[in-house]
Amino acid sequence: MTSTTEGRAGWDPSTLQSRYDVVRTYTETLAAPLSPEDQTVQSMPDVSPTKWHRAHVTWFFETFVLADNEPGFAPFQDKYWFLFNSYYEGIGPRYSRPDRGLISRPGAHDVGVYRSNVDDRMRDLLTTLDEGTLTKLAATIELGFHHEQQHQELLLMDIKHVLSRNPLQPAYAGTPSPTAETDQLGWVEVDGGLVEVGHEGDGFCFDNELPRHEQWLRPFRIADRLVTNGEWLEFIADGGYRRHELWLSDGWAKIQTEHWQAPFYWTEVDGVWFEHTLHGTFPVNPGLPVSHVSFYEAEAYATWAGKRLPSEAEWEHAARVTGSTTDRVTGNLANTTSWHPEAAGQSTGGLRQMFGDCWEWTSSAYHPYPGFRPPAGAIGEYNGKFMSNQMVLRGGCALTPAGHARASYRNFFPHQSRWALSGVRLADDGATA
Amino acid sequence: MTSTTEGRAGWDPSTLQSRYDVVRTYTETLAAPLSPEDQTVQSMPDVSPTKWHRAHVTWFFETFVLADNEPGFAPFQDKYWFLFNSYYEGIGPRYSRPDRGLISRPGAHDVGVYRSNVDDRMRDLLTTLDEGTLTKLAATIELGFHHEQQHQELLLMDIKHVLSRNPLQPAYAGTPSPTAETDQLGWVEVDGGLVEVGHEGDGFCFDNELPRHEQWLRPFRIADRLVTNGEWLEFIADGGYRRHELWLSDGWAKIQTEHWQAPFYWTEVDGVWFEHTLHGTFPVNPGLPVSHVSFYEAEAYATWAGKRLPSEAEWEHAARVTGSTTDRVTGNLANTTSWHPEAAGQSTGGLRQMFGDCWEWTSSAYHPYPGFRPPAGAIGEYNGKFMSNQMVLRGGCALTPAGHARASYRNFFPHQSRWALSGVRLADDGATA
Amino acid sequence: MTSTTEGRAGWDPSTLQSRYDVVRTYTETLAAPLSPEDQTVQSMPDVSPTKWHRAHVTWFFETFVLADNEPGFAPFQDKYWFLFNSYYEGIGPRYSRPDRGLISRPGAHDVGVYRSNVDDRMRDLLTTLDEGTLTKLAATIELGFHHEQQHQELLLMDIKHVLSRNPLQPAYAGTPSPTAETDQLGWVEVDGGLVEVGHEGDGFCFDNELPRHEQWLRPFRIADRLVTNGEWLEFIADGGYRRHELWLSDGWAKIQTEHWQAPFYWTEVDGVWFEHTLHGTFPVNPGLPVSHVSFYEAEAYATWAGKRLPSEAEWEHAARVTGSTTDRVTGNLANTTSWHPEAAGQSTGGLRQMFGDCWEWTSSAYHPYPGFRPPAGAIGEYNGKFMSNQMVLRGGCALTPAGHARASYRNFFPHQSRWALSGVRLADDGATA
Amino acid sequence: MTSTTEGRAGWDPSTLQSRYDVVRTYTETLAAPLSPEDQTVQSMPDVSPTKWHRAHVTWFFETFVLADNEPGFAPFQDKYWFLFNSYYEGIGPRYSRPDRGLISRPGAHDVGVYRSNVDDRMRDLLTTLDEGTLTKLAATIELGFHHEQQHQELLLMDIKHVLSRNPLQPAYAGTPSPTAETDQLGWVEVDGGLVEVGHEGDGFCFDNELPRHEQWLRPFRIADRLVTNGEWLEFIADGGYRRHELWLSDGWAKIQTEHWQAPFYWTEVDGVWFEHTLHGTFPVNPGLPVSHVSFYEAEAYATWAGKRLPSEAEWEHAARVTGSTTDRVTGNLANTTSWHPEAAGQSTGGLRQMFGDCWEWTSSAYHPYPGFRPPAGAIGEYNGKFMSNQMVLRGGCALTPAGHARASYRNFFPHQSRWALSGVRLADDGATA
Repeated sequence: MTSTTEGRAGWDPSTLQSRYDVVRTYTETLAAPLSPEDQTVQSMPDVSPTKWHRAHVTWFFETFVLADNEPGFAPFQDKYWFLFNSYYEGIGPRYSRPDRGLISRPGAHDVGVYRSNVDDRMRDLLTTLDEGTLTKLAATIELGFHHEQQHQELLLMDIKHVLSRNPLQPAYAGTPSPTAETDQLGWVEVDGGLVEVGHEGDGFCFDNELPRHEQWLRPFRIADRLVTNGEWLEFIADGGYRRHELWLSDGWAKIQTEHWQAPFYWTEVDGVWFEHTLHGTFPVNPGLPVSHVSFYEAEAYATWAGKRLPSEAEWEHAARVTGSTTDRVTGNLANTTSWHPEAAGQSTGGLRQMFGDCWEWTSSAYHPYPGFRPPAGAIGEYNGKFMSNQMVLRGGCALTPAGHARASYRNFFPHQSRWALSGVRLADDGATA
Repeated sequence: MTSTTEGRAGWDPSTLQSRYDVVRTYTETLAAPLSPEDQTVQSMPDVSPTKWHRAHVTWFFETFVLADNEPGFAPFQDKYWFLFNSYYEGIGPRYSRPDRGLISRPGAHDVGVYRSNVDDRMRDLLTTLDEGTLTKLAATIELGFHHEQQHQELLLMDIKHVLSRNPLQPAYAGTPSPTAETDQLGWVEVDGGLVEVGHEGDGFCFDNELPRHEQWLRPFRIADRLVTNGEWLEFIADGGYRRHELWLSDGWAKIQTEHWQAPFYWTEVDGVWFEHTLHGTFPVNPGLPVSHVSFYEAEAYATWAGKRLPSEAEWEHAARVTGSTTDRVTGNLANTTSWHPEAAGQSTGGLRQMFGDCWEWTSSAYHPYPGFRPPAGAIGEYNGKFMSNQMVLRGGCALTPAGHARASYRNFFPHQSRWALSGVRLADDGATA
Repeated sequence: MTSTTEGRAGWDPSTLQSRYDVVRTYTETLAAPLSPEDQTVQSMPDVSPTKWHRAHVTWFFETFVLADNEPGFAPFQDKYWFLFNSYYEGIGPRYSRPDRGLISRPGAHDVGVYRSNVDDRMRDLLTTLDEGTLTKLAATIELGFHHEQQHQELLLMDIKHVLSRNPLQPAYAGTPSPTAETDQLGWVEVDGGLVEVGHEGDGFCFDNELPRHEQWLRPFRIADRLVTNGEWLEFIADGGYRRHELWLSDGWAKIQTEHWQAPFYWTEVDGVWFEHTLHGTFPVNPGLPVSHVSFYEAEAYATWAGKRLPSEAEWEHAARVTGSTTDRVTGNLANTTSWHPEAAGQSTGGLRQMFGDCWEWTSSAYHPYPGFRPPAGAIGEYNGKFMSNQMVLRGGCALTPAGHARASYRNFFPHQSRWALSGVRLADDGATA
Repeated sequence: MTSTTEGRAGWDPSTLQSRYDVVRTYTETLAAPLSPEDQTVQSMPDVSPTKWHRAHVTWFFETFVLADNEPGFAPFQDKYWFLFNSYYEGIGPRYSRPDRGLISRPGAHDVGVYRSNVDDRMRDLLTTLDEGTLTKLAATIELGFHHEQQHQELLLMDIKHVLSRNPLQPAYAGTPSPTAETDQLGWVEVDGGLVEVGHEGDGFCFDNELPRHEQWLRPFRIADRLVTNGEWLEFIADGGYRRHELWLSDGWAKIQTEHWQAPFYWTEVDGVWFEHTLHGTFPVNPGLPVSHVSFYEAEAYATWAGKRLPSEAEWEHAARVTGSTTDRVTGNLANTTSWHPEAAGQSTGGLRQMFGDCWEWTSSAYHPYPGFRPPAGAIGEYNGKFMSNQMVLRGGCALTPAGHARASYRNFFPHQSRWALSGVRLADDGATA
């Protein structure tokens, strides 16, 4: 997939197979609490049905690994190639995205059969791979793992929205939501100068994290934790959603049209704010990080606070120099009872909540790094073609699978997106700037 | 419900109960072949999910019968009153119609539980009813039967559309579609004069079929069968969809915008027309009645043929004087293998295919009969408030349950509707007109 | 144009020419107070710019009279045939209706040049017509007169809307608006039976007023004047726009979506209702007929009042039997200072305000009369193709040119239209019904 | 307006007044060929009517200069403050932008009266200013000059679109369009390193050009002229608009939806491409720069050519180091016969056509420079609030008034905009990159 992972060492068949099993099983674990009906619904065009996610990640292995390498390959179902292609124009025509919720068949069970079939074939392939082919294929298979992890996160964000549309207020999981005490926001000073940005080293990365390159930064400060619900309530109380001077013009138009008055999943009942979560609906907890806000809201909040958002280069550089690494990411299903938001903020090198709470809006448009070249073929459509009209988010969130986050990771959403688990970290110019 | 049924004799508890069981069971029979996922999808705003139909007809009995008559009544679920109210403003706020497909819960199984609960309570009520209450309630309960039958028909029309959107081309039922030989279209002459229109006698009718009243008709002719697929193919071949002079202005605009070139479920593959049916997709059979055409298409076809559509008064009068009664309706699940279209056209008094093939567009706008007054209360919203922007269809169709059709029955759809099982019968001015 | 006017006597060249001059001059008189900018604006798709009206009625004579009869005919400008064709598909492609306001050229002055050119050519033609051609052409020329009169009325309705969108509140004409005292509404009883409907006699009529035919009416009552603004204020005060049970379903949806709370041109300022008129903006006068209400509002008002709207047959029959003829129409520019609404209601045969105040909504859908056949050729598109999704209005209004109204005249607008000068006359079932 | 211009020397009353007269007169010169009807039309929401531009730039002086400084100030017309406010929320409510074409009054002549009135009052003010007030006001008055110049350019872009919608193909100006010979595209190599970006020196600049700051650039190459029509024809011929792999995802969706197949004003007639210009419609000239392409098209073209767009920092740095200054800008009404496209490309320091042909799309999103702070008050809405969802364009165009362009000037439009006079200059990574 990327120049660093192609042909790099470290993958042997048994490691690949065991990793394959872990990733694939985890998707089914996430889908397990959901009924066939839950897995069918598409509550808005951005959202995909659960069973579509389960099938699409399977299609990815079938298309990009099995098709060219399985002896006597034939697709499990011809029509699945059409139904479960997300956006790869190079593969052929696709089923219309906003219509994914119209497809009752294959049903949830049928998708399970499809998954098993591809799993069997993948395991067969992995056991029979010769060294040369392994070297050639490992990068694509690893991309498949990370692709599936992205969809694991999306599956949870999406079902959260699906369930939110239901007046019965169903919960995805019964565990009670975490709470947190409010504490003092601190600032970490970071020197500027000529810094390096982009993925470094042998590990996996997506193509959009490369090439690693130099960038000039002025000294800056960055908050040591995310903006909290309690702080957001002050913003609301101070007329944050009614004062045009705080907003970008597009954002102001949006909040007028959509009547936004609070984060996405908040509802006011008799003067008290409640928040829809994967556990059900609860009063807003002031100590937890605010979540499900758009870039426009993040930017307006920063203006109101007399601060600004960090650029993606500032964020990445700060993560590196403060030693905030992904090792300490805990915001996932395996090792926390929390879906969202993540209570157990990590304190690392001065910066907390860097990887396991909310994706953090930056002030940077999502554009290619200098010298970026997407790979040839359909796989080249993975990232590059989305580099317009979106903003970069950094870090990770409570729904991000373990091992999926890293300091150079570039997530991206349109300015108005709110259904993703997105939050806000403030920055400011450095003392000597 | 109507002045004729209120308080009329003929209903005793055991007949009511047995009729209740028959109607209610038939709904579940129709839903049986459908998976939970099938029952969840709403493929366009006009369509409702199967499980919504199943719940809504249940809600009707709970709301209009149990609520005021069951001792210690409490709703099965408070929120169901909100979710399964179709359009009764008098009952309170309703869940948005185009969003019915977003509701994954209650699931198909949960709806079954709801149905059983209401069935038990209805049976309890029916066994304990005293004579006076029975007299008071019978009309509403009977309305509940006919209401459920309407939804049985809709359930089939709707699932036909849901399945049509699926590239896998699933069938609702495996039985092969019927075919028919083309035969000669004949004409039946009918005298005009001062005729009576509207429901007559003791049997059930909807409020919109009353009052029976006089209307002046000129002599006319009416076709003894429906327009066939074969005739429609000639219309297409003669540029029917490309010649503006055949069309009403609104219809012409519609076919331009929507790119209509054939009936709703037709698709051309390599010069051959195929039709999506509840059995699957088959080549268009020339001898069967054309179906799934809009009023605009019906009217344009009639203009092309040098004829016109019958008015609803002409249709009803012709049905009466030729002795075309509903006894011979066969287009239902119990006694035909055909879903659609109905092969076994009845030849009765000269007019065939009057009740069991396709709903027949008339030239009459759906307006109240002279002297029409809807009943008081929420039940008064059943029909009257829809009397604008729609055209009347008469007869019945292959999906209409047995016992549900009659000569005075007024069905109605907007001019552009095509997902209903609608067809065309031609008329013309009489020889002496 | 119609079977009665084709070839009928009464037209000689000099009468035709003098009538031509009167009609054509009146259009320019109406446009005179309007600046080139006023004449350019299209304030919504239903509205046409003044200069477009002026050009289109000219195009009508050029297309349907000169083109086939002028020796050596050539169009004044080729492109005008495209720009000023309103809806005649038979003539060729047309310029998009909603884009009429994008056409700055030809300007208002250029349109005047076009008008003069066609006037000269028409006068030349009229002076050189032989008897046979005259007989052949007279009906089309007369249709051109009535066509231009229709557009004179539309020109005023349209410019009223254009000026209403301007915060400067400009007036079309400076004359003060009339006022009227409220008086008692009376009822006129009319016998039913088999009556004749449709145009009768030698005079001009549009094709949609024919054939004259029989219709059966039950005895009915009809109000002797229109509903007043004062009565409408009571309807508003009684929650008329907030009570769903008064409304057709489509109407209720419309007033929700559009936030209707009063007639089209009413605005509430500090608890007082003001009305935009062609004279400027004034407090609503309680004694004048309510105007600029949609069919939905008219129907809801009638329901609220415990009455109903008359059918078009009832209206026409009542006009005939009470002797309400068009001779007494005074609602035009020549003989009243009033544009709208018309103060001087006429008392004729018991029915007042029949022709010169507001077009009156009926309960009848706009459909062809039994036996209706539009003329051959493009001229056949004049009326027939609009016979769907519209309701009939009868009478005439304060903006209707003198000589243009008659008892059999069928005007028509969609249910939701409000920019036309439309009002409400109530009806009810007769005492003996 | 900006920190550098506030209080800076160089303005004395007579210079200000003479500059005022020059700028204000030029606007009227540009509007002179346009009829009142031309000046009224708004052909799409992005476009403003000519007379609106003329009034709005006048409103700017009245609002930001006269209101606080004229003794006994009263607005010329209260309602004009509402009608001619473009986007300043801080001033109060505004008239809806997409409805500017609905406002027939004030007419073109009335706007002239408004302009004269404000001109008189401005001249009075300028002659009576004391030294202190002059120092305080000069920056705002100068901003008014540049603001009016921006609208002079927009006025021409807008009227070009208005006239393009007219089937009569009217010309704004009669002068024939220039032509140019195709020549060889050359490349200029530019060193990277730590460079300064942003406005420098005493001259006027907009707030978005500041603060001047350091940025790290890699070595790059930049084309010495713009992409030509001839080269664009090759792109089309090679399937440029049909090959998904060349396009950003949003751009591909856009060209599907909008059916783009060529630049905005191009039309194909019998295999020959014609271009609408301010002079009329002519065959596309292969040697002239391509114009009226969106960012999506510019980016796709660069991909097709195996190159990329320059970043805004690269563009500005290249202009500086090659000595391409604005002194040589000739693309304006005063000193060229050309409206568009500009024939007389300047060859300066190796880079041609930098300022007087087409605005040049860059690869940079329009975001604030590090340390950017908008001024306080309504004037702070001038630029900052638009810094989302737009891309930066650099240079200037044939419609840019003399003296209005400079190397640090940041123009911006949304990715899909095409009605602006926008073109393409290619860049590439440097040899040593």
